[in-house]
Amino acid sequence: MKITMAHGSGGNASKELMGNIFGKYFKNDILDKLEDAAVLDVSGRIAMSTDSFVVTPLEFKGGNIGKLCVCGTVNDVLMMGAEPKYLTCGFIMEEGLDIDLLEKAVASMARQAEEAGVKIVAGDTKVVEGSGGLMINTTGIGVIPETRDVSAENCAPGDKIIVSGTLGDHHACILSARMEIENEIKSDCGCLKDITDALFGAGIDVHTMRDVTRGGMGTILNEIADSSRTMIELQEAAIPVSEEVKGFAGMLGLDPLYMANEGKMIAIVPGDQAEKALELMRATEHGANAAIIGEVKQLSCKKDNDMSGTDADAETKPVVHIKTPLGATRVLDVLYGEGLPRIC
Amino acid sequence: MKITMAHGSGGNASKELMGNIFGKYFKNDILDKLEDAAVLDVSGRIAMSTDSFVVTPLEFKGGNIGKLCVCGTVNDVLMMGAEPKYLTCGFIMEEGLDIDLLEKAVASMARQAEEAGVKIVAGDTKVVEGSGGLMINTTGIGVIPETRDVSAENCAPGDKIIVSGTLGDHHACILSARMEIENEIKSDCGCLKDITDALFGAGIDVHTMRDVTRGGMGTILNEIADSSRTMIELQEAAIPVSEEVKGFAGMLGLDPLYMANEGKMIAIVPGDQAEKALELMRATEHGANAAIIGEVKQLSCKKDNDMSGTDADAETKPVVHIKTPLGATRVLDVLYGEGLPRIC
Repeated sequence: MKITMAHGSGGNASKELMGNIFGKYFKNDILDKLEDAAVLDVSGRIAMSTDSFVVTPLEFKGGNIGKLCVCGTVNDVLMMGAEPKYLTCGFIMEEGLDIDLLEKAVASMARQAEEAGVKIVAGDTKVVEGSGGLMINTTGIGVIPETRDVSAENCAPGDKIIVSGTLGDHHACILSARMEIENEIKSDCGCLKDITDALFGAGIDVHTMRDVTRGGMGTILNEIADSSRTMIELQEAAIPVSEEVKGFAGMLGLDPLYMANEGKMIAIVPGDQAEKALELMRATEHGANAAIIGEVKQLSCKKDNDMSGTDADAETKPVVHIKTPLGATRVLDVLYGEGLPRIC
Repeated sequence: MKITMAHGSGGNASKELMGNIFGKYFKNDILDKLEDAAVLDVSGRIAMSTDSFVVTPLEFKGGNIGKLCVCGTVNDVLMMGAEPKYLTCGFIMEEGLDIDLLEKAVASMARQAEEAGVKIVAGDTKVVEGSGGLMINTTGIGVIPETRDVSAENCAPGDKIIVSGTLGDHHACILSARMEIENEIKSDCGCLKDITDALFGAGIDVHTMRDVTRGGMGTILNEIADSSRTMIELQEAAIPVSEEVKGFAGMLGLDPLYMANEGKMIAIVPGDQAEKALELMRATEHGANAAIIGEVKQLSCKKDNDMSGTDADAETKPVVHIKTPLGATRVLDVLYGEGLPRIC
């Protein structure tokens, strides 16, 4: 069975699809009310994030668009130190979409949402012309416990930078599928809640967290350096990349530091808690290959007055440096030119 | 200038687009932080709703996709009795999208968000292959004041049904544009906050509200009858439809009761407050043509025990009746068959 325009026009075909696919997997007290909006109880500071997922192919080694769209938004909410609670989803289905494939994606969403402890509380479907594609927007909210204060602004000189595992897996997996290259590379698509639970559960004073997605680690660390007005120094030799991804990236001339991931994060923690944080991460499923890869330093010519740091002064420009195994230092800039389209 | 795949791959072209278009119109203390998720202060019961907008054409008489995507989600949040606070938006842009058109839509979003009193707090952009289309998901949250309890379940026998204005305008406008029929029909696309503010401000005890969108009033009233286990009786002669839309619908054999609107709502209020509510609505911009169109009645054979109402007993099936000007009564069912695709 394929999706037709009729599935999107609010009539009986829409209703059938609702019952047979979405209703089957997404069931909870809130969603079942079928009101215009979900009514939720939350209080305090909440984190809210949105992401549209347009990945092709829709299924890949290690996941599919359904798993990806839940993990992606849940991870964004987690990175603010929040406990993810609720998720909405908007499906844009292209005519010709295979209904079995849709069902697989929806089933993955339900499974992943349960694993992550989030409820899917509102949804919407639309059908557009096309050739069987599927795009899903998810928006998530989570509650930030009062004791937590995680922000890119908080990272400070002396902090250590920990990455939760090998870089580039999702990117290499998607690109392999598109180029029809046979290999064993699996996407790292996954939910980082085991890691954040471990860190906060043990009282680690996490300053900054970011999941390493589109744009890669190079781009994300530059954003963090920028927000916190610091200098970041990485040790190239310490950065974990799997042998398969190294080979793949080498063959195609790609740099794993700019490749996208969908289940990797950076945690920036006070220097004296770094070893403990690393140990905690390594004990989790998604952090088994974690490594300390660098540290945060003072900007070379930082003025006394913070505000002066906003001057267009080349000397005080926040920057990410990377030390090569041979002892050289190079600047790691943001992604220049183009990444891979439809990677997430 | 047109959108290219490069605008979606997280590199410099994406960054430029961010600054030149989105950053120009969407600016506030929360969005400017550029974290993975927005951090918001809310407390109590919140309403959360999501909608993807795929309307074609992207611009139409009375609005464009930008105005529509803010109004649509804000209205859904309003209908739960909430004060809309925050909005996220996810843009899926097709290659070839005209950047001027994108800018117009974004500018409309910003203007409409300001008018509705909501902050756009998070966003995401993706680019996909295609032919210059634009799809936008918006997800909104609002806070429900403690004193309000609005739900489809709350409507009760004796309540009156008020519609905020003429039906079918958005549908007729979009269809006219697609069929290249020249007429003066304008979409009713608009934000219903003036109406809800007026009703709640005057202390009207609103039982149920719904915006009348995809599926039309027939579908929505059936959903309400279903949720509240009541019978709804409409007076056909009282239902406002403009002369232009009447003519257009007659010509094409469409029924305005199943046509989509994007700035119309139903309010169901206690019978003794109906005249006052009507007067309040008529004093607003978006409710100038409001009318009392029917009332809620007891299901004919309702049992003493509410639970028994869920029996598959034809006698107790919730139903919407409509009295014709000639005194006949017909059943108004949900939209059967297909509505208009890409209407919103």
